[in-house]
Amino acid sequence: MSYTIGIDYGTNSVRALVVRISDGAELGTCIFDYPSGNQGILLCPSDHHLARQNPADYIQGVETAVKGALAEAARTEGFSASQVIGIGVDGTGSSPIPVDASNVPLALDPDFSGNPNAHCWLWKDHTSIKEAAAITEKAGEMRPQYLAKIGGTYSSEWFWAKLWHCLNIDRQVFDAAHSWVELSDFVPALLAGVKDPAQIRRGICMAGHKAMYAEDWNGLPDKEFLAALDPALADLRDRLYDQAYDASEKAGTLCAEWAERLGLPEGIAIAIGEMDVHYGSIGCGVDEGTLVKVIGTSTCDCAVVSADKDVADIPGICGIVKGAILPGFYGVEAGQSAVGDIFKWYVEGVIGEVSQHGPLTEAAGKLKPGQSGLLALDWNNGNRTILVDQSLTGLMLGQTLHTSRAEIYRALIEATAFGARAIIERIKAYGVPVERVVCSGGIAEKNAMLMQIYADVTGCEMRVARSSQACALGSAIGAAVVGGGHPDFATAQAAMTGLKDVVYQPIPENQAVYERLYDLYRELHDAFGGVVESAHLGHVMKDLLALKAEANQG
Amino acid sequence: MSYTIGIDYGTNSVRALVVRISDGAELGTCIFDYPSGNQGILLCPSDHHLARQNPADYIQGVETAVKGALAEAARTEGFSASQVIGIGVDGTGSSPIPVDASNVPLALDPDFSGNPNAHCWLWKDHTSIKEAAAITEKAGEMRPQYLAKIGGTYSSEWFWAKLWHCLNIDRQVFDAAHSWVELSDFVPALLAGVKDPAQIRRGICMAGHKAMYAEDWNGLPDKEFLAALDPALADLRDRLYDQAYDASEKAGTLCAEWAERLGLPEGIAIAIGEMDVHYGSIGCGVDEGTLVKVIGTSTCDCAVVSADKDVADIPGICGIVKGAILPGFYGVEAGQSAVGDIFKWYVEGVIGEVSQHGPLTEAAGKLKPGQSGLLALDWNNGNRTILVDQSLTGLMLGQTLHTSRAEIYRALIEATAFGARAIIERIKAYGVPVERVVCSGGIAEKNAMLMQIYADVTGCEMRVARSSQACALGSAIGAAVVGGGHPDFATAQAAMTGLKDVVYQPIPENQAVYERLYDLYRELHDAFGGVVESAHLGHVMKDLLALKAEANQG
Repeated sequence: MSYTIGIDYGTNSVRALVVRISDGAELGTCIFDYPSGNQGILLCPSDHHLARQNPADYIQGVETAVKGALAEAARTEGFSASQVIGIGVDGTGSSPIPVDASNVPLALDPDFSGNPNAHCWLWKDHTSIKEAAAITEKAGEMRPQYLAKIGGTYSSEWFWAKLWHCLNIDRQVFDAAHSWVELSDFVPALLAGVKDPAQIRRGICMAGHKAMYAEDWNGLPDKEFLAALDPALADLRDRLYDQAYDASEKAGTLCAEWAERLGLPEGIAIAIGEMDVHYGSIGCGVDEGTLVKVIGTSTCDCAVVSADKDVADIPGICGIVKGAILPGFYGVEAGQSAVGDIFKWYVEGVIGEVSQHGPLTEAAGKLKPGQSGLLALDWNNGNRTILVDQSLTGLMLGQTLHTSRAEIYRALIEATAFGARAIIERIKAYGVPVERVVCSGGIAEKNAMLMQIYADVTGCEMRVARSSQACALGSAIGAAVVGGGHPDFATAQAAMTGLKDVVYQPIPENQAVYERLYDLYRELHDAFGGVVESAHLGHVMKDLLALKAEANQG
Repeated sequence: MSYTIGIDYGTNSVRALVVRISDGAELGTCIFDYPSGNQGILLCPSDHHLARQNPADYIQGVETAVKGALAEAARTEGFSASQVIGIGVDGTGSSPIPVDASNVPLALDPDFSGNPNAHCWLWKDHTSIKEAAAITEKAGEMRPQYLAKIGGTYSSEWFWAKLWHCLNIDRQVFDAAHSWVELSDFVPALLAGVKDPAQIRRGICMAGHKAMYAEDWNGLPDKEFLAALDPALADLRDRLYDQAYDASEKAGTLCAEWAERLGLPEGIAIAIGEMDVHYGSIGCGVDEGTLVKVIGTSTCDCAVVSADKDVADIPGICGIVKGAILPGFYGVEAGQSAVGDIFKWYVEGVIGEVSQHGPLTEAAGKLKPGQSGLLALDWNNGNRTILVDQSLTGLMLGQTLHTSRAEIYRALIEATAFGARAIIERIKAYGVPVERVVCSGGIAEKNAMLMQIYADVTGCEMRVARSSQACALGSAIGAAVVGGGHPDFATAQAAMTGLKDVVYQPIPENQAVYERLYDLYRELHDAFGGVVESAHLGHVMKDLLALKAEANQG
C-alpha cells in the first residue's frame, strides 16, 4: 500500500494531508496556524492594501503539519511513513518571496527581518495598483498578446506588479533579492534542497496565470518589454527562469535533511507546485466537461480543455494557460469576486447578527423563485469575471415597504447564482464544455438551498466534492502521479476523488422563472457593466412585480 | 378675546384644538382614539386592500375631543367657551360615507352596522383598483380634461372608484345610500344640523382633488361620462352636489343640539371642510412662494399660486384645484409615496431593531455627502409625484463589502431628498414659485440631519412650522376667518402661525456634491421610471466611486 502527502498553504494556515493512493482515503491531517502577524498576515495600520507573510512560518509550518498528519495516519493499521512515495505542494498566489543567491528568503536575514518588503508579498496585497495599471497600459501598447490570456487586465495581485512596486518603494530590498520565488515553488524547492534559485523548477500554473509566461513567446515577458517598465526588471529576468513545468514533472526529490526532519524516505518525488485552487480542482475531479467551483468568500472556477483543441482567447476570463491545471489540457480559470463575503456582509454588517445566517437560510428557503420581486447584482467586491472590473459595486432593486430580510438574503444568493451562470455561459460560448458542476467549500457542503438555486439558475447538475480538503488532496494526487503510484492524472483522479451522494438537479418550474430573472439580470449587468451603450430599463421593476404576482398566485 | 376650535380627523384618532385667534396660542387639545376595529380601522383578514372606518367613531369623537380640549383651555385665565366664535374641520380623504336621505350614515342603521361596505371607505382603502383603472381609461377616451388636473391617473383611493366598487360588489348598500359624503364634509354638516344631503355645503378641496369636480365643466363629471361607467352612477349624480365651496365660505352654523352637546354658543360659524394636509398647510403658513411639506410616513407637499395667474396643467402633479387650499389661489398638491415608512422599513424590518433609529442617525450624520458611494431611489411604495406610478419599487446601488448600515440609512434619507427636489423642480418649471420650504411633522421637528440634507439637496432654505398640530391649527384659522375674527386668510395666518427658530440653510460645499449625485439620481429615475427610452448607465458606479474617493480625500 502506498501513500502520498498533500500540503496546502492557505491564507492563514498550512494543512498537511496523508492520503492512501488506492482509494483516496484521508488517514491523517494537521493544520498549522501561521504564528506571525494578525492571523498569519503582516499588516500595516496606515496602508490597508498591504498584506505580507513571514516565510519562516512556511518553513516551520511544513515540518509541524507533516509530522502531525503522519502521527495521525500512524493510528491506521498497516500505515507506515516508509510507504509514502511522494509529496505535493499547493499555495496561494501570486505570493512571491524575495530570496538570496542561496534560495534563502531575505526575511530570514536579521538585517531584513523587520522589513515587510523583504517578506512574502501575499496574494491579497494590493499595494501595487499603480504598477498593475501601468503594466496593463504598456502591454496594451507593446505586447497585446500578453494580455489576451489573462482577461485583458494585469492585476495588482500579480507577480510583476509586486516586484516592480518593491523596486519603486524599497530599492534596498529589490537589490538584495537575487531572485523571487512563488510560495508554491519555494516549498518544493526547499524540500528538495535546492540552494540555487536558478535550479528551482517552477510551476507553469503560477508562471502562466500571474507572470505572463507562455511558450508562445519563449517564457516570461521579453527584456525589451520589461526594460520599458524599468531596466532593473529586465536585469532581474536573467535571474528568474526560462522554463516552467506542468504537473507531469517533478519539482525534485526529498533531500536528506528534510527527509530526516519529516521522518520520510529520502528521494521520494516532489510534485510541481500549483495554485491552491488548481490542485483543488484536481482533488474535486476536474475533467473536460466538469467545471469545479470552489465557493468560499469568493469563488474560483476551474475547467480544462484538451490541449489538442484550439481554444480561443475568452474575453473576460482571467486565465487560460496550457498545463496550468492538468498536463495535456488548457487550464481555464475564472471567478466571482465575492460570494460568501456578500452574505457575511449582509448578515453581520447590515443586520448585525451573525446568528441570523441559520434562520435567514431557513426562511429564504421557503420562498419561491420570483416571489420577492427583488433582483440584485453580485458586485459588492467588483466583478472578476466576465467584466474584469474592480470598480463596480452592488445593486439591489425591487424593494417595497414589505420586503423582508430573508427575501433580501435570498436575492443576494440568487445574484451570485446569476454571476455563476454568466461565467458558465461565457466559457461555453468559447468552446469550454460544461456538463456538470462540482462544488467545494463549506458553503457548498452546508447550504442546500444555495446549491439548489445554483442548479435552477445555471441549469446544470450541481454536485459536491467528497473531500473537504480538496486542495491538499489534489496535491497528494500530483504526488501520486510523479511518485509513480498512478500512471496519469485521469487514473489517479478516478481512484482518489469522489463526490458526495447528494445531487442537485435543476427543477424545471424553477428554471422557467429563473430564465426570466436571468434575462433581467443580464440587462442590468450589461447596462451598469458598460457592455451596452444604452439600455431600456423602464420595464424592469414592472416585470419583477409581474413575476412576484405570478409566484404568489402559483 | 376670541377663540376658535380646529378639529382634525386623522387615520387613527381625532384631535380638537382650542386656539386664541389673536396670536395662535394653543390653549387646549384633546385626542380621541377611534374605538372600532384595529386602531380605528376596520380590516378584512382575507383582503388587505380593505380599510373602513366606523362613522359612529367620528360622532363620538368630535364630542369627546372638543369637550376635552375646552376643559383644558378653561385652565387658562380669561378663557371662556362663550368666546369661541367658530369651528373648523379637516379630515383624511377621499373617505366617503354612504348616508340615507336624512344624512344619517347607513352604518348607524342596525341592518347595515355589520357590513363594512356601509361604513366610511377610508382614504387608504385600495379595494377599487380595477374601477380606478377603468375610470382612467374611460376618461382618457371621453374626457381627457378630467385627468389633466389630477396628474393623468385616477386613483383607487378616490371618490368615484370607491363608489363604483361598492356598486359592483354590494348593490344593496349602493341602493340604500341616498348620497355619499366625504368625512370632512360630513362632520361640518353634522354640527350644523343639516338633515338633507342636498343641503350639505361641500368643500372644493375634496371635490376637486378626489371627485374630478371643476368649474370648467360645471362641477362633477357629467352624466354621459358617468353612465359610460355605469348608469347607476349617473343616477347618483343628481343626489350629490352641483356646487362646492372654498374656505372663504361657511359650511353652516352650529345647531342648537350640538351647541348644547359641546357647550358652545349656538350659531357660531362652521368652516368649509378641507383635507387634513390642506388646512395643515395653512397652519404652516403656506403662501405664494412657500412650499409646505408635511413629512410623515409619506409626504404631502402643498403650494399655492394666485388664481389670477394662468397655471398650466403640470405633468405628474396629482392635483391643481382652484380654491382647494386658500380662497383666491390655485392649490397645488404633490407628494412622495414613502419617506418615514422607508426609514421604518429599513430599521425595523431589515435591521430589526427599532432602537437603532437614534444611533444610525448619529452615525449617518457624521458622513459627508458622496462618502458612502451609495445612491438609492425612494420608490419602495411607488412614486406618487412626478411619475404617478405605484408599480415602481426601490433601488440601491454602490454597495461594497464595507458598506455600513449607517451609510445605507443616510442613502435612504438622501433618496427621499432627491425625490423632494424632483417635485420642487417640476412645479417650479411650470410656474409655481418655491422660495422656501416649511416642514411639519415629527421627522422635521426631530431629525436635524435630514433637514440639513434636504436643504443641501434642494438648495432651499428649510424651516419647521411652529405648531406640531398644524392641521387642527389650520382648521381653527379657517374658523377664525369665517367666524369674522380675521378679515382674510393672510391676516389670520400672519397672526396665528409661526416658525420655529431653527433655520436650515444650504451649505455650498454639500450642495456641490449633491448636484452631481442628483444628476445621477435623475439618470436612474428617468431610466427605471420609463421617462427616457434608453439610458447610458455604464458610468454610474464609477462616478459614485469617484465621488466617494473625493469625499474621503477632502
